[in-house]
Amino acid sequence: MSRLLEKINSPRDIRSMTYKQLGALAKEIRRYIIETVSKNGGHLAPSLGVVELTLSLHRVFNSPVDKIIWDVGHQSYAHKIITGRRDEFSTLRRFGGISGFARPSESEHDAFGTGHSSTSISVALGLAAARDLKGENHSVVAVIGDGAMTGGMAFEALNQAGHLKKDLIVILNDNEMSIAHNVGAMSGYLTRLRTDPMYSRGKEDLEQLMKKIPIGSALLRFGERLKDSLKYLVVPGMLFEEFGFIYLGPVDGHDIKALSSVLQRAKTTKGPVLVHVLTNKGKGYRPAENNPGRFHGVGSFDVNTGEIFKNSDNPTFTDVFGRTIVRLAHKNKRIVAITAAMPGGTGLINFARLFPKRFFDVGIAEQHAVTMAAGMACAGYRPVVAVYATFLQRAYDQIMHDVCLQDLPVTFAVDRAGIVGEDGPTHHGLFDFAYLRPFPHMVVMAPKDENELQHMLATAVSYPGPVAIRYPRGAGFGCKIDDDFKLLPLGQAEVLRKGSDVTLLAIGSMVRPALEAAGLLAGRGIRATVINARFVKPLDEECILHYAGHTGRIFTIEEHVLHGGFGSAVLEMISAKGLKDIRVYCLGIPDTFVEHGSPALLKARYGLTADQIARAVTDKVVPKSRIRRLRVVSDNL
Amino acid sequence: MSRLLEKINSPRDIRSMTYKQLGALAKEIRRYIIETVSKNGGHLAPSLGVVELTLSLHRVFNSPVDKIIWDVGHQSYAHKIITGRRDEFSTLRRFGGISGFARPSESEHDAFGTGHSSTSISVALGLAAARDLKGENHSVVAVIGDGAMTGGMAFEALNQAGHLKKDLIVILNDNEMSIAHNVGAMSGYLTRLRTDPMYSRGKEDLEQLMKKIPIGSALLRFGERLKDSLKYLVVPGMLFEEFGFIYLGPVDGHDIKALSSVLQRAKTTKGPVLVHVLTNKGKGYRPAENNPGRFHGVGSFDVNTGEIFKNSDNPTFTDVFGRTIVRLAHKNKRIVAITAAMPGGTGLINFARLFPKRFFDVGIAEQHAVTMAAGMACAGYRPVVAVYATFLQRAYDQIMHDVCLQDLPVTFAVDRAGIVGEDGPTHHGLFDFAYLRPFPHMVVMAPKDENELQHMLATAVSYPGPVAIRYPRGAGFGCKIDDDFKLLPLGQAEVLRKGSDVTLLAIGSMVRPALEAAGLLAGRGIRATVINARFVKPLDEECILHYAGHTGRIFTIEEHVLHGGFGSAVLEMISAKGLKDIRVYCLGIPDTFVEHGSPALLKARYGLTADQIARAVTDKVVPKSRIRRLRVVSDNL
Repeated sequence: MSRLLEKINSPRDIRSMTYKQLGALAKEIRRYIIETVSKNGGHLAPSLGVVELTLSLHRVFNSPVDKIIWDVGHQSYAHKIITGRRDEFSTLRRFGGISGFARPSESEHDAFGTGHSSTSISVALGLAAARDLKGENHSVVAVIGDGAMTGGMAFEALNQAGHLKKDLIVILNDNEMSIAHNVGAMSGYLTRLRTDPMYSRGKEDLEQLMKKIPIGSALLRFGERLKDSLKYLVVPGMLFEEFGFIYLGPVDGHDIKALSSVLQRAKTTKGPVLVHVLTNKGKGYRPAENNPGRFHGVGSFDVNTGEIFKNSDNPTFTDVFGRTIVRLAHKNKRIVAITAAMPGGTGLINFARLFPKRFFDVGIAEQHAVTMAAGMACAGYRPVVAVYATFLQRAYDQIMHDVCLQDLPVTFAVDRAGIVGEDGPTHHGLFDFAYLRPFPHMVVMAPKDENELQHMLATAVSYPGPVAIRYPRGAGFGCKIDDDFKLLPLGQAEVLRKGSDVTLLAIGSMVRPALEAAGLLAGRGIRATVINARFVKPLDEECILHYAGHTGRIFTIEEHVLHGGFGSAVLEMISAKGLKDIRVYCLGIPDTFVEHGSPALLKARYGLTADQIARAVTDKVVPKSRIRRLRVVSDNL
Repeated sequence: MSRLLEKINSPRDIRSMTYKQLGALAKEIRRYIIETVSKNGGHLAPSLGVVELTLSLHRVFNSPVDKIIWDVGHQSYAHKIITGRRDEFSTLRRFGGISGFARPSESEHDAFGTGHSSTSISVALGLAAARDLKGENHSVVAVIGDGAMTGGMAFEALNQAGHLKKDLIVILNDNEMSIAHNVGAMSGYLTRLRTDPMYSRGKEDLEQLMKKIPIGSALLRFGERLKDSLKYLVVPGMLFEEFGFIYLGPVDGHDIKALSSVLQRAKTTKGPVLVHVLTNKGKGYRPAENNPGRFHGVGSFDVNTGEIFKNSDNPTFTDVFGRTIVRLAHKNKRIVAITAAMPGGTGLINFARLFPKRFFDVGIAEQHAVTMAAGMACAGYRPVVAVYATFLQRAYDQIMHDVCLQDLPVTFAVDRAGIVGEDGPTHHGLFDFAYLRPFPHMVVMAPKDENELQHMLATAVSYPGPVAIRYPRGAGFGCKIDDDFKLLPLGQAEVLRKGSDVTLLAIGSMVRPALEAAGLLAGRGIRATVINARFVKPLDEECILHYAGHTGRIFTIEEHVLHGGFGSAVLEMISAKGLKDIRVYCLGIPDTFVEHGSPALLKARYGLTADQIARAVTDKVVPKSRIRRLRVVSDNL
């Protein structure tokens, strides 16, 4: 532990420090963050960017009485370290350890839980409204990145905050990045604020300056309307002022003294205030400064070289998706790709490079992404919307209303589905089957491996309606990738192994463990049929009913919540068919939010390993051969 | 049919008309709309407000080559009438007739289907992107109200449109209303644009004016920066200009000549253009002008008096909700209410009047509504978020991420759930059980009648976690409303009738029909147990399993899609309990989007009347008494 940091047990401990000491402390905190993340992985660049901002916030505001809301929360590492979690911080993102996001259950200093983007202003407004109703008197601060500001709900909240006029501070952490480089008109506007010398001067300075110039004084005398116009001249951030916010800034986000001064002013200003803070993502660690996108969320790496360790040489599902869409796009000009600020994360970098006109990064704006795709599909294109399962939740209504209701051929590449691991409950993709399959017209698939993923994508872009393909985070199995695409018949499952005692009906990531489990079961005398369902909707009714009837018992296996999931779809189908005497057992995630931790550990925790599947089957199934033996024995008695 | 209107068979027919003729045509169209809506019900005020705008759009643009996207689509009546649907318009909102919203399946002039708010700019941008990829050359026009503009996804789309710089026209139909009076900072901004005499002059006029005033010329000489400042002086709509749009307007939305001129200019302007059009909601029909909220969406009424006919003297579920929340709020100061532009529709008018500080209308911004509620709940309040089932879909992610994950006590009053009738597929609330019940911590209830609704609301606001209560549109049953609230034990069902042959397990609106069906069945010798499930989550496992075991057969009955719904929950539970020999039949909406039409007709279409339930049971169930008789007969053979 470093010299200054070891004395910091609560934010109170930093308030007496000099600016020089705070500067030294910032360095120590950075070193500690870099060391920890190099081992545990995490959101390095966002957290390195706001160390001085964090110290300044805790210097000026009195957390937890004053409330600080970290939008997304992946930038809260320094905040965690100085709010009583310094030592536990070494357990970052490990099972049972410190979360990589804001978590009220961890500390009263985490005023609200975050993980998804653009929620902070709404939360802050709710807290401010509650404060005023109670007649309390404390500050509420939302810290939001310029990327998160493009999310529609941030605008919805700004719009209401400017109207309600409650005391509320929004810190716009402007690092010119969301996860990839920022897009959108708002981004251009912020660039003008940053780079225009007139924009970047303080309002008061400019008012003084204007008074000194003759034409300036003339202007000042030119009546009310002109004063309003002048306001545009002297007030940078007019856009925010039009929304009813007082705009302060821009201020250097790595200058604790300047930050403290502007935050102090924000604290004493009535009504909604927006403080525009300029930071460098990855600040203080060269590899991250040079490549903030790469070091946004990162696995373990070599601190000295910045070399990121690879978990596996196998290409990831994302890699295979990225290669496949490029191959398909060469053949089919109608294919376009849309992502919401995740060109790298979703594997679309190459597509974007090769087909720049057919690639659309809409920013953190999943709702718009989906409806824009619907518009393009309506005009004859074949949009592929690549979004993480958990973030696609933002576009639930648009999937129903703009895509499915109009039966438009939009393909959803639902990446990071299932258990994602260390990012925890805000990031696991465990609800997608349940939210997608009730929509009429929607086809829902999940590949058993990365080779099947490519065939599914080829199938999807040639299907005349909406299709979702969900696939997991991380490395594939290293299986052979076929040279040619196969179009999968709609709703056709694949029988991988035949056995008469029980049917293991698995979907997506659970097909391989199911096959392994069948091997283990064979050793125990239980002969299992293993079916790769491929489709959650439409189900292969004929195949499932055949083997269900044959074996009398089905285990559905999915990396998804049990409520409303794949198993439910099978139960519904069997009930609708009026079949008796078939027992269905559903394996999957129970009715709980899954913690953070390694995927392997979490899967084991919820019974989804091959061994656990085999055990679950053994508990319920007596092999027919043994029943026959038993019958022979009893007949002989 | 009127004189001019009878000659209008396509938009082409209006292009040769003089402005005077168009003015007369507008009157005829208004009369036709008023007459039709007075019989069929519909969105009167929005459609009356845009008659001249519609004529001007079709005069200047060449639909269907040029694409016109009507945001929400409830203002598209005049558009429908002049695009080949004049005669069919008399079937407005009737089963098999003309939809009350934009519907591509109805006409090629409906470029995209709408119904929910704030989607049009995203769609238009998708169509514009497709056009440019194809190398085509036509206009794309989105017509969006100032209310819809507060929806976050409209901002997401504006932000990207300003960045992509594609040719695109956004018509801001500013009537100072969404459904209720508009809220938010954007609304204040638009008011300034409207009312400030400097703002409201044309840009060119002002530039000319400036040149004539000495100080103006001086200003023009004062270098680049000052010119930018001047731009703020002379360019109204700077906010939109900052977003990369050319701003034109404001223009009188009832002056066809002025509209045609500004639309012509928009058509020939490169890049994204925003045309600010001022209209009066309800224009041309005094009762609607005087009370545009009342005549936003309306049932049948007397054309002469504007008196709206009542379908029933019974209070609606919405009325009972509104009264109950007021009663509860008197007792419990922590109760606050939040709505998204629906204070009237959700029954919160009285609450707003009595507790103005505890009432929040956030505008059309469901995402923000839910997360703001989460913020208030986090600070100790008991927010009740009253939203229609179909619009709550917009906040799917916020319900999961901000409410359920943090287990916060937010109550969702899910109004207009089930079949809503004439508004059709965009407005039916048929997915809510499926989207709400997979979330851990969420409690989901549905009352059998309006009296139970009040008890459920009382129960919800005293429960320490998230609760959703879904209830239908329209009049209740006129049942007695208890004086005192009863707190319902969590997850406790209610047995309404006992019989040994079959169990009818109904939820919400289906409990009464199930009871009636049991009566019909009794006449056929089938004795049915009827259970009011009350809770979709948690289920009353003990009660359900008891009667399931006793009768051997359960019919689940719900006004909701079968995929992932209440029936699925029951199937999951019975499967998890490992019960054999229980047959479950699920009645509900199949895998299809439900059309528009009267609720009674639609319910009958999907087998949800008492008679149909009884018939479905009769098909499957042989009464035990008859089985016994049969056995006696066979024993005697």
